[in-house]
Amino acid sequence: MYIKNYRELPIEETEVEGLTVRWGITALEGAANFSMRLLELAPLKSTPLHQHESEHEIFVLVGKGEVVTEDNAYPIREGSVIFVAPNEVHCFRNTGASALRFVDAVMFPSEITK
Amino acid sequence: MYIKNYRELPIEETEVEGLTVRWGITALEGAANFSMRLLELAPLKSTPLHQHESEHEIFVLVGKGEVVTEDNAYPIREGSVIFVAPNEVHCFRNTGASALRFVDAVMFPSEITK
Repeated sequence: MYIKNYRELPIEETEVEGLTVRWGITALEGAANFSMRLLELAPLKSTPLHQHESEHEIFVLVGKGEVVTEDNAYPIREGSVIFVAPNEVHCFRNTGASALRFVDAVMFPSEITK
Repeated sequence: MYIKNYRELPIEETEVEGLTVRWGITALEGAANFSMRLLELAPLKSTPLHQHESEHEIFVLVGKGEVVTEDNAYPIREGSVIFVAPNEVHCFRNTGASALRFVDAVMFPSEITK
């Protein structure tokens, strides 16, 4: 059993400007299959279009934005449940004036960006 | 890509009194490894002590309660990140006056109770 409030987790910068991560559950806590992390994208920031082997399973906690694919942009907001399929090209965009924060569950290895 | 607000998902009863589930991401949406679901426990209700092969990776959205193991009770509340290891005996208890709602990611097969 491992329990921590996400507010206690260190906020780490990533390679993407405006994107930070708090690692909630990783191999260090005993997870063998997938991680749970909190991602936060600053207002008007985007991740680059990218793809990776792991699916994303996401729950949006606060903020509003879009998930963008090669063909479409899908609005997301608090309460959105998002499945990004393995190898699907995508990015996240914060279209709001405050942080876009979401819970992200990803299979190992779980890279933030590629 | 699959996106839905959790409020649009049907609320399903479970075998546990006071526990409902909204299935967010399952094999039906293309997931091959793990599910994401929303569980909601009514005030003062508990799940039975149980165990299962899959780990839980949980984020508490609202409410307060406890995760109980054979030896301990750990307080949880909005913002708690919880890792329940594979086969760890546990239950969830709502100790508050309002719903305890959490995002739960679990490997397939994902049973709610055992």
